Amino acid sequence: MTDQDPLVIFTPSGRRGRVAKGTSVLDAARALGVDLDSVCGMRGICSKCQVAPGVGEFSKHGVTVTEDALSPINSVEERYDRVRGLKPGRRLGCQAQVMGDLVVDVPAESQVHKQVVRKRAEVRDIVLSPTLALSYVEVAEPDMHHPSSDAERLLQALRTQTGHEVLTLDRHLLTSLQAVLRKGKWAVTAAIHQDDGAASVIALWPGFFEGKLHGLAVDLGSTTIAGHLVELETGDVRASSGLMNPQIRFGEDLMSRVSYAMMNPGGAGEMTEVVRDGLNRLVDELVEEAGIERDSLLDASFVMNPVMHHLFLGIDPYELGQAPFALATGAAQACLARDLGLDIAPGTRAYVLPLIAGHVGADAAAVALSEAPHRSEDLALVVDVGTNAEILLGDKTGVMACSSPTGPAFEGAQISSGQRAAPGAIERIEIDPVTREPRFRVIGVELWSDEDGFEAAVGASGITGICGSGIIEAVAEMRMAGIVDPTGLIGSAEQVGTPRCIPDGRTHSYLLWEDGEGRQITVTNGDIRAIQMAKAALYAGARLLMDKRGVDTVDRVVLAGAFGAHISPKHAMVLGMIPDCALDRVTSAGNAAGTGARIALLNREARREIEGLVHEIEKIETAVEPRFQEHFVAATAMPNAADRFPILRSVVDLPEVDFNTGGDGASGGRRRRRRG
Amino acid sequence: MTDQDPLVIFTPSGRRGRVAKGTSVLDAARALGVDLDSVCGMRGICSKCQVAPGVGEFSKHGVTVTEDALSPINSVEERYDRVRGLKPGRRLGCQAQVMGDLVVDVPAESQVHKQVVRKRAEVRDIVLSPTLALSYVEVAEPDMHHPSSDAERLLQALRTQTGHEVLTLDRHLLTSLQAVLRKGKWAVTAAIHQDDGAASVIALWPGFFEGKLHGLAVDLGSTTIAGHLVELETGDVRASSGLMNPQIRFGEDLMSRVSYAMMNPGGAGEMTEVVRDGLNRLVDELVEEAGIERDSLLDASFVMNPVMHHLFLGIDPYELGQAPFALATGAAQACLARDLGLDIAPGTRAYVLPLIAGHVGADAAAVALSEAPHRSEDLALVVDVGTNAEILLGDKTGVMACSSPTGPAFEGAQISSGQRAAPGAIERIEIDPVTREPRFRVIGVELWSDEDGFEAAVGASGITGICGSGIIEAVAEMRMAGIVDPTGLIGSAEQVGTPRCIPDGRTHSYLLWEDGEGRQITVTNGDIRAIQMAKAALYAGARLLMDKRGVDTVDRVVLAGAFGAHISPKHAMVLGMIPDCALDRVTSAGNAAGTGARIALLNREARREIEGLVHEIEKIETAVEPRFQEHFVAATAMPNAADRFPILRSVVDLPEVDFNTGGDGASGGRRRRRRG
Repeated sequence: MTDQDPLVIFTPSGRRGRVAKGTSVLDAARALGVDLDSVCGMRGICSKCQVAPGVGEFSKHGVTVTEDALSPINSVEERYDRVRGLKPGRRLGCQAQVMGDLVVDVPAESQVHKQVVRKRAEVRDIVLSPTLALSYVEVAEPDMHHPSSDAERLLQALRTQTGHEVLTLDRHLLTSLQAVLRKGKWAVTAAIHQDDGAASVIALWPGFFEGKLHGLAVDLGSTTIAGHLVELETGDVRASSGLMNPQIRFGEDLMSRVSYAMMNPGGAGEMTEVVRDGLNRLVDELVEEAGIERDSLLDASFVMNPVMHHLFLGIDPYELGQAPFALATGAAQACLARDLGLDIAPGTRAYVLPLIAGHVGADAAAVALSEAPHRSEDLALVVDVGTNAEILLGDKTGVMACSSPTGPAFEGAQISSGQRAAPGAIERIEIDPVTREPRFRVIGVELWSDEDGFEAAVGASGITGICGSGIIEAVAEMRMAGIVDPTGLIGSAEQVGTPRCIPDGRTHSYLLWEDGEGRQITVTNGDIRAIQMAKAALYAGARLLMDKRGVDTVDRVVLAGAFGAHISPKHAMVLGMIPDCALDRVTSAGNAAGTGARIALLNREARREIEGLVHEIEKIETAVEPRFQEHFVAATAMPNAADRFPILRSVVDLPEVDFNTGGDGASGGRRRRRRG
Repeated sequence: MTDQDPLVIFTPSGRRGRVAKGTSVLDAARALGVDLDSVCGMRGICSKCQVAPGVGEFSKHGVTVTEDALSPINSVEERYDRVRGLKPGRRLGCQAQVMGDLVVDVPAESQVHKQVVRKRAEVRDIVLSPTLALSYVEVAEPDMHHPSSDAERLLQALRTQTGHEVLTLDRHLLTSLQAVLRKGKWAVTAAIHQDDGAASVIALWPGFFEGKLHGLAVDLGSTTIAGHLVELETGDVRASSGLMNPQIRFGEDLMSRVSYAMMNPGGAGEMTEVVRDGLNRLVDELVEEAGIERDSLLDASFVMNPVMHHLFLGIDPYELGQAPFALATGAAQACLARDLGLDIAPGTRAYVLPLIAGHVGADAAAVALSEAPHRSEDLALVVDVGTNAEILLGDKTGVMACSSPTGPAFEGAQISSGQRAAPGAIERIEIDPVTREPRFRVIGVELWSDEDGFEAAVGASGITGICGSGIIEAVAEMRMAGIVDPTGLIGSAEQVGTPRCIPDGRTHSYLLWEDGEGRQITVTNGDIRAIQMAKAALYAGARLLMDKRGVDTVDRVVLAGAFGAHISPKHAMVLGMIPDCALDRVTSAGNAAGTGARIALLNREARREIEGLVHEIEKIETAVEPRFQEHFVAATAMPNAADRFPILRSVVDLPEVDFNTGGDGASGGRRRRRRG
């Protein structure tokens, strides 16, 4: 190119260069590495390459653009505008030719690699780079003088247009190929899948396909299966739905399901079947809710813990029920959705994220993908709180992971008044440190219990129990109000100075609420023991990783998981669930596993990233680490002045009380926890 | 290596070189590129690497081998000999170490790339290079301190031992992997499949697998499905079986089946289902007959014509029923056998040979693989005679192919007394040129009809008709005896001078046989017309290719196909079925398509060879070549002195007769033939 050739500047990328006069804007973009989409092979049909050229002086860029910097609107553009409509000022990049110096803007919707902005400042945006792309091609008709098959001519046309040198056709398309080509009068739109390996044509439509491609991101939890149906071109969630994991009837927690498989021949197969059935129902719901064509749902990503992973893949989880907890496979699975028993469309692909270790699943890998501790400048502790807590600790110099058997207390199980997070459950609690009187909020009601109209708002369904985040706040508030001592003992009415401390066997309970009909919600000393065990396991896991890393504090804490999102950082730290950390550096990541599944669905480079990361993460098996038991025992108590929580103590007041008057039976509690 | 290092000479390859003292014979073989097998990773278990060392003076090789040229028999060899037995004089190559100058023989069974010698001198031996290999490995046990999955450790062990850098595990193995590893006490035998792409583990056995791997070669004909079960390590056929193609009930010939698919919604699917069912029955029979374990049958190759190909793959053959005869796909198919509806073992692979063109199928490709015209020094005409004749003409400078619609006359259909080749059918005929009296032989009887004991040998089932090769001989003999003139007219009793020429409507028939009960077998003038049409089509196809090639003669003719194998070259040439050629250069290749299927099963390089060749072959579509019609019309007559058959005329006497006395209706006959 010489100085006489027109200078083209693309915004917002700022890429610039000279091109020969008469070059199409699309070719210029390609030559300069500008991200400009195109589906129809420069036929002026798809309008994916539309751009917004500027006119006038662009002092920032040092050029003046005249009206004739682009070729006049041609008949293809005129036809497109007439038939489908083109926004004012827009041109088709494949038709408009560069005739003079030019500044041209690529609107977001014309970029292949659009960005999906995430609401939380501390995380990366998602760059769209899906495994699927559409390509509209015109295929040569058969010629008896030069016989070649329809598949051969289709692939030849697609190879030329897309540049995929290795491109194959899904076998299932062979049955419809000939009819589709003829129905489309030798023009078809192909959905091309490319992930790690070669590219494949996985769906075909006659003529130009007007629709969008969709994908499914699934978080396959032990309790709940949550799915999002996503438009791949924009990343927009078109529908979300969830259902109870139908495996629950074989066991509430994972270990019960492993036991069921051990005790019942064919039991693992039964559980595989019901979870796949459940997923198929979920797909039906999502497709209906989003109102999309089922055959446009062509990719799916899945995250889950190791036991669910094995059951979903049809592997008996037997070995995960006993040391050394050997996985059959932990590698990412890229296959056809129908190979996993899913009836979506014949060509639909499935991607199961890799597992990290025998107790640290693809859900934790997805959390890592979403929260990216491996890219963090400061030392981040990421905790996905559930029946097992998956814990990641690290920064860009390295990441460690472990799993800690917290048990189901955080989900409201093993708690006397515990229940799942659902309307009627107490979720927020405050206890006045002077009067020791509680106030609380229940799920589904905006008012606090001491506000006018609360009773009416709660209505007939009433107050039904305490959910996981509620019990954490209750215990922490009881500790701050001096109702509970650091060892976890509830004082008597006399010791504490409130009649709400009522005798309960050899210990005491704290009366949170009662109605006129004798219904009560209390926090028992047993409840506190259960929470102590759970939080001690979680804390011990985090401490173990910190020991391995050689640190006493972390720079920030991320609480992930549906439950983690509802935990109050202050209360968690009062309990000693998480290590000492500035409270404003404790954030919630919401359903980070689900977000990770969505990232893996929308960005194929992210798949390579997590596949690499799971190998680099240092896996710590808590079961073989003696220090885990030491930390666990030490962490059953709640923080007091002797503990390593200086930041916490600067924020909250933790009364020095001791209700241990001997012979109360409170020093018991199960130290050994089953995994689940 | 220096001159002090021992010199090792391997026979029969003659490869030689010096290796460090103490090198195992197996390592020496690998270093010198000698083809020596090994399955067990030098553990002394498989004995595949056994060799026969020599002792004494080898003047041919210029070395003297002493008794201590190899290390003494060690404990591993001793144990192997005690437990499993080792032939006298044999050593395990992985255990025996080179200590001095050595001449060592690699017996045929220790070579990976054994040769299967074919009986016919003009064709290549088959070199064994199957897609499957066994590998016995010991796998690291799981370690909680370094968690990794069972699959990961298995693949790591296999990668190290086999050198396959890219090695994946078939998904179906995930369900049994953990149990198999533990049952084998962390030792397993893997069947590894490698064809074109990456290697895959497709079957696993606990411990050392004592069995053999097997493959299936199938010739899927319109009428008959023939299968061979082959031991992959030796190429030995362990069982052969055939069955009628169950699609016959939808139409005898291919065009009837295409019509059935056109006329009946779901008809193509029905035909796909029945042929797959038939194949599954065939597999059952073969596995039972060979007495092998079904899960050792792990590869399969298939050849068939284009219509059968599409129906087998589940593609509606609609487009093959009309110009331009566009194939959906002609590419080789490499997939799982279960993807083609075959229930063999979960990991069994299938390979469908590529098609050549819309009328020239994978059966013709297999014939090309077997007969290798593309490697021929002289110009070869290869004709696979069936309802369609597939014709290949070429030499190492290039090959052309076409298909010619001969119709079913050669298979005994459309012939008044025609029948399939089966016991009771007349297959050989001679007519005395002086007396015009016939003698013949029937299938299943060794005697000629004029020999003593013939009647008794034929027995009660009697003489039932004439098969394809019989009718060809009959017509040719009638021509040589002056019973038929060059235009195909049968003379009257007076004209010919035998009462066997009997009036039959407006023409005459020749009485071949009658019994005392009025049963007759005659050759009618209609029969001769049918044979004339068929042979003219075949000859016209060959001539068309010869025209394209610019030749008037070919150096040799190969007749392939079950029917082709039974044709007498002289009679075929008297009829004018094939071009003029020295009779001793006309050979039969038997079931060359079946042989080609077996070659593709046993040699993966042959798969690449035929995939390349089908692209290089110049396809001639007879339907669009005006010269085909010209040749066809000209070829309906039988050769006489005016024709281009100088070699033929030097061998046989063709009487100059002319029975065309006008108004006999014999000049009719169908000129236009349906494809089938």
